[in-house]
Amino acid sequence: MPFSYLTHLHCPKCEKVYRPDEIQQLCVCGSPLLVDYDLQELKKHWRPSAFSGRPSTLWRYHELLPVTAPENVVTLGEGMTPLLPMNRLGMDMGIGRLWMKDEGIIPTGSFKARGAAVGVSKAKELGVQELAMPTNGNAGAAWALYAARAGIRASIVMPVGAPLITRNECAVSGANLNLVKGLISDAGKIVGQAVKEHGLYDASTLKEPYRIEGKKTMGLEIAEQLEWNVPDVILYPTGGGVGLIGIYKALRELAELGWIKDKLPRLVAVQSAGCAPIVKAWEERKPASEFWTDSSTVAFGINVPKALGDFLVLEAVYQTEGCAIAIEDAELLEEQRKIARLEGAFVCPEGAAAFSATRKLRENGWIKESETVVVLNTGSGIKYPETVHVEVPVLEPHDVMRRS
Amino acid sequence: MPFSYLTHLHCPKCEKVYRPDEIQQLCVCGSPLLVDYDLQELKKHWRPSAFSGRPSTLWRYHELLPVTAPENVVTLGEGMTPLLPMNRLGMDMGIGRLWMKDEGIIPTGSFKARGAAVGVSKAKELGVQELAMPTNGNAGAAWALYAARAGIRASIVMPVGAPLITRNECAVSGANLNLVKGLISDAGKIVGQAVKEHGLYDASTLKEPYRIEGKKTMGLEIAEQLEWNVPDVILYPTGGGVGLIGIYKALRELAELGWIKDKLPRLVAVQSAGCAPIVKAWEERKPASEFWTDSSTVAFGINVPKALGDFLVLEAVYQTEGCAIAIEDAELLEEQRKIARLEGAFVCPEGAAAFSATRKLRENGWIKESETVVVLNTGSGIKYPETVHVEVPVLEPHDVMRRS
Repeated sequence: MPFSYLTHLHCPKCEKVYRPDEIQQLCVCGSPLLVDYDLQELKKHWRPSAFSGRPSTLWRYHELLPVTAPENVVTLGEGMTPLLPMNRLGMDMGIGRLWMKDEGIIPTGSFKARGAAVGVSKAKELGVQELAMPTNGNAGAAWALYAARAGIRASIVMPVGAPLITRNECAVSGANLNLVKGLISDAGKIVGQAVKEHGLYDASTLKEPYRIEGKKTMGLEIAEQLEWNVPDVILYPTGGGVGLIGIYKALRELAELGWIKDKLPRLVAVQSAGCAPIVKAWEERKPASEFWTDSSTVAFGINVPKALGDFLVLEAVYQTEGCAIAIEDAELLEEQRKIARLEGAFVCPEGAAAFSATRKLRENGWIKESETVVVLNTGSGIKYPETVHVEVPVLEPHDVMRRS
Repeated sequence: MPFSYLTHLHCPKCEKVYRPDEIQQLCVCGSPLLVDYDLQELKKHWRPSAFSGRPSTLWRYHELLPVTAPENVVTLGEGMTPLLPMNRLGMDMGIGRLWMKDEGIIPTGSFKARGAAVGVSKAKELGVQELAMPTNGNAGAAWALYAARAGIRASIVMPVGAPLITRNECAVSGANLNLVKGLISDAGKIVGQAVKEHGLYDASTLKEPYRIEGKKTMGLEIAEQLEWNVPDVILYPTGGGVGLIGIYKALRELAELGWIKDKLPRLVAVQSAGCAPIVKAWEERKPASEFWTDSSTVAFGINVPKALGDFLVLEAVYQTEGCAIAIEDAELLEEQRKIARLEGAFVCPEGAAAFSATRKLRENGWIKESETVVVLNTGSGIKYPETVHVEVPVLEPHDVMRRS
């Protein structure tokens, strides 16, 4: 049996088909490309029992990933992150079965490791020697480190405002790092220019087709961890939205394989009130978003004024009867503290936004008490120390401990 | 079959025996206590095949852990961290089979999560409502967060010089946090005073018996991940040394269960040249260490001038024909960068010290080229951003990307 059931790439806009054994970026029509597999053939061979002896990483799903030769897999042990019950928080919100998929427990400390692991592995398989990408921080850190492990040269451009720790991660990897006084959209223009000028592999969000495949493993894992059942609702903090696109793709592939039989979960795109182009488009029932000017939020990972894959995110939301919702910074910071105090989990601000959205959607009745809800925490709070306010007593060695 | 084969506690110095169903701290003789299990009975029931269907956390070894009722388990999904091949770094050092046990991929970002998960779970089982502890940062962060999940009140005292991020983790958990202008030894005195005055549970290193049990799972996992074989050498960055004591305990228990048959690995205690009491004691062939004055190192987690369990660390090193070695800050920082560039792993400075020690011990012939070597990286580099020097170009939005 083949290591991968990869067959081809196709354009979701104009349906044009591409070969997967050559470097591909966008479709000639400008759309991102999606990856296809021989699901009918795979259906004959895949059984749930196959997974019990496999390594506890996303590579356990290698048949449904695009890397065709095992020796091209570049791994730091990513995937199979915990799906944790959040009982006390659920009680606080009035939700009986609340789960957190904790993407902080992964190399580089954010879910971006998934896209990087699969994207860099496939780039290695295709013979890429140098890649470039813009980033809000976490993706750049992940791609820089996985590229280092693969022996691929990486150029990363990030806003000066991106989290400091992600800057250090890029630097320590030996990547060529540039900062820009602007947003990720400005970084993207600089990368686009360099790609054209130097013939680099463009690893920008959705400009290479394989990052989605890495992200989709979140959906595969949620289904496996719930014993091949799906929850009623999945909430996802949405910047570029690749995770949501990936989870939707995973669920559809599992349904086609016959592994999940229920109605697909309602997918919720959570944004920040300071940058909510998808929410605006969803409220207006539009198929795509418009550039959000003067965007700003403490949840830096979802400060994306215009996502290339916005139409795919909106399709996933519409098709599953989900919704899109925006959260204020003050709300998400309050929720972040509540999660740590009730559950002992220090989540990133983007993850906190998704929990805050859960609370609001429960309050307005969109989520019912009896529903099973999975919230994606996309990274570790450790990477955002500035989101926590600390004011504590400082003692001399012979002082007595204060008890607040 | 019982969930745990726990039988009793005993003092490794005076042999006195204690009941495990009541709160115990140190032995009346002042020594830490160790936990015992009915290994002869367990031997009849435990089979390697039992593990294949179990969750990918340290709780897969529950029979060999001290929590007797599953409902007392407090978990954030910790354990079964990756054991990663470090082929390029191994080639650089001249070691054929070099592995990293990556304890950065765990809740709270450091191996301290293991001791906290098991220690807090057992504290919950024993009815503890409030605990206190001194910390160099990571242990306090882990215990504060796990205590929050358990609904146990925590008081943490840490040096003002401890890593800032660990301070934020304690604060966000809602713990009662105090800083002290001094070292962990000063924090320890303040905690000792508060414990006496308010009757708190003393969760200081080795003053409660269960943290070792959590740490020992690193040894169980290494053996399982190497398919119940053991490496020739295990290197461990040593502050309080609980991890080394725990790994040694795990290996002895596995040997008694008949699961590993080879000679035990040579255990290496790695310290910083700025705080090397164990190394000094080992060089002088002494059974215990002396207080190291004016200690200082960038590897903050191993800045422990006098460890309560020093005699147990030294016993593990002597009994396995291991060694102890000190590393300069400049050497470990250089090694940290090399690891990121060659392997894509951003390790903590303590982990980098252990790799630097590996390099030195290979150079002087103590480690042979053909040997299998496992290095513990005790935490994520993300928690120590200040160890990376970043000097990068800052562009205006219309500038061109620089390629270094």
